[in-house]
Amino acid sequence: MLLGSIEAGGTKFIAAVGDEHMNIIDTVTVPTTKPDETMEQISNFFSRYHLDALGVGSFGPIDVDEKSQTFGYITSTPKSFWRDYNFVGYLKQKLNVPVAWTTDVNAAGYGEYLLGNANGTESCLYLTIGTGIGGGFINKGQILNAFSHPEMGHVFIKRHPDDTFEGICPFHKNCLEGMASGPAVEKRWGKKGVELADQSFVWELEAYYLAQALISYTLILRPERIILGGGLMKQKQIFKLIRNEFHAMLNDYVEVPDLETYIQPVGLNDQAGIIGGLLLAKNKLKG
Amino acid sequence: MLLGSIEAGGTKFIAAVGDEHMNIIDTVTVPTTKPDETMEQISNFFSRYHLDALGVGSFGPIDVDEKSQTFGYITSTPKSFWRDYNFVGYLKQKLNVPVAWTTDVNAAGYGEYLLGNANGTESCLYLTIGTGIGGGFINKGQILNAFSHPEMGHVFIKRHPDDTFEGICPFHKNCLEGMASGPAVEKRWGKKGVELADQSFVWELEAYYLAQALISYTLILRPERIILGGGLMKQKQIFKLIRNEFHAMLNDYVEVPDLETYIQPVGLNDQAGIIGGLLLAKNKLKG
Ligand SMILES: Nc1ncnc2c1ncn2[C@@H]1O[C@H](COP(=O)(O)OP(=O)(O)O)[C@@H](O)[C@H]1O
Ligand SMILES: Nc1ncnc2c1ncn2[C@@H]1O[C@H](COP(=O)(O)OP(=O)(O)O)[C@@H](O)[C@H]1O
Ligand SMILES: [Zn+2]
Ligand SMILES: [Zn+2]
Repeated sequence: MLLGSIEAGGTKFIAAVGDEHMNIIDTVTVPTTKPDETMEQISNFFSRYHLDALGVGSFGPIDVDEKSQTFGYITSTPKSFWRDYNFVGYLKQKLNVPVAWTTDVNAAGYGEYLLGNANGTESCLYLTIGTGIGGGFINKGQILNAFSHPEMGHVFIKRHPDDTFEGICPFHKNCLEGMASGPAVEKRWGKKGVELADQSFVWELEAYYLAQALISYTLILRPERIILGGGLMKQKQIFKLIRNEFHAMLNDYVEVPDLETYIQPVGLNDQAGIIGGLLLAKNKLKG
Repeated sequence: MLLGSIEAGGTKFIAAVGDEHMNIIDTVTVPTTKPDETMEQISNFFSRYHLDALGVGSFGPIDVDEKSQTFGYITSTPKSFWRDYNFVGYLKQKLNVPVAWTTDVNAAGYGEYLLGNANGTESCLYLTIGTGIGGGFINKGQILNAFSHPEMGHVFIKRHPDDTFEGICPFHKNCLEGMASGPAVEKRWGKKGVELADQSFVWELEAYYLAQALISYTLILRPERIILGGGLMKQKQIFKLIRNEFHAMLNDYVEVPDLETYIQPVGLNDQAGIIGGLLLAKNKLKG
């Protein structure tokens, strides 16, 4: 069985071919320019293989409603070349394979759920805290999707009493993404996250905001595990701070697993999205 | 077919017998005292009928994990007589019928989803804003339940600049329930909600907090409809205020249905919980 996977990001696309055991056979990286350039390179890469199915995790927002006329499209993205682009349609036409289609975050979450640090659980919330903040939830094998896919990085939070930063979200100013994403950290402190590694208050504040959001997600979704990925989570010292804040703020209101187990970094590193795409492709062949 | 339903609340239990068309044949209300008193009256009521199944929506927290040793129990409630009480076990022993078991909020949400103001949708978030704030989410016929049932009234929110009230949640002080539940409104203003009906700022502030939470729920769950019940939502003027705040704060970040359709009051009034219990009982017989 040959499976394809695409991790379609705002700056680059990664594509891979693998087998049903998740051995990766070939891979390519292509810059995100215009659809006719980027997608042609991707489809040329795949056309050398006889794929049985393809899994795509894409930047968004995307249309995932199978009953919609624009199913498989990227919709209202600020990247104007990609607005209203028929992503799945192009792939089906060029490659003539079944395509599993979800968000980049859902694909990475699915990878972590089945083969990463949520392996063995029944439900997992996966979050990425990088240029943006996004999340995906998988419960009993199903990726949560109702009216559309979640966009859970923009929840509201309470301000830390010592923080006067106004926030950078163009929609909400001081939502979670506006206060705690990579660019928010950079704007507040005037330095990149990686340069702030030894500034303990930076990470305490970050943990204060993330822990609040994790509590909201916990109370609404009740996941068995939470996996945190994305650039900012490379600061491994933050996990202890997040767990401490989470414990203090939740105040034992509901039962959660032991926090060392409950809140974990990614297990598949930068591979979660690609592996997730392969797993979704494999799954597509079953049903 | 004869179905039973119990709405088990902190002050009273309501029980009903109905048929598969949701015609209610008989009903009883019993005060919530001790399990051996309250439950005996409830089981005596049902024992006059040959029930095919029974649906229960209970105050909580409750154990809904079918693999757990304490499945069917009320767990860590502050009502000490009911702590670690084997609710489902008692009913099965006395009445020997299949029992569907969920939270009071989930049962009411299920009623609204199938026969109330979310009828015809694929996914519905039901919230009650009363003595406490709680929510249940139903998607494609399934009540969301992962590690356990949601307890979504305690999410964090940002403070209104003109509000200095410290909040009354014993766990979190200024979470949503601490700031916007019936007792919070009463404590902040020194009067009951119903006596504040003509104070417009009371309801603007309430809408400010509820709208933030509705945005968090929207971004995390992406429901097709939101139904708001509970005592405070009897102030019907608040729906317009909530929709306005929601619109302003979401700032078109994601697509939602038209807000008049999206955010609605209950359709079944005080019957949602009982009807939901009957529907859950009926459903139990199918699968
Ligand atoms: N080691 C690091 N420590 C702190 N911040 C980092 C680190 N690496 C990347 N970041 C920050 O994470 C953000 C990028 O997130 P990332 O997840 O790598 O990419 P993207 O979200 O664009 O896919 C940037 O704001 C960057 O400054
Ligand atoms: N008509 C009303 N207007 C405003 N507030 C009300 C109204 N009716 C009840 N409330 C408030 O709602 C709360 C009770 O909520 P309710 O949903 O009726 O019960 P419970 O949550 O205990 O099941 C109380 O704080 C009460 O003051
Ligand atoms: Zn935002
Ligand atoms: Zn609280």
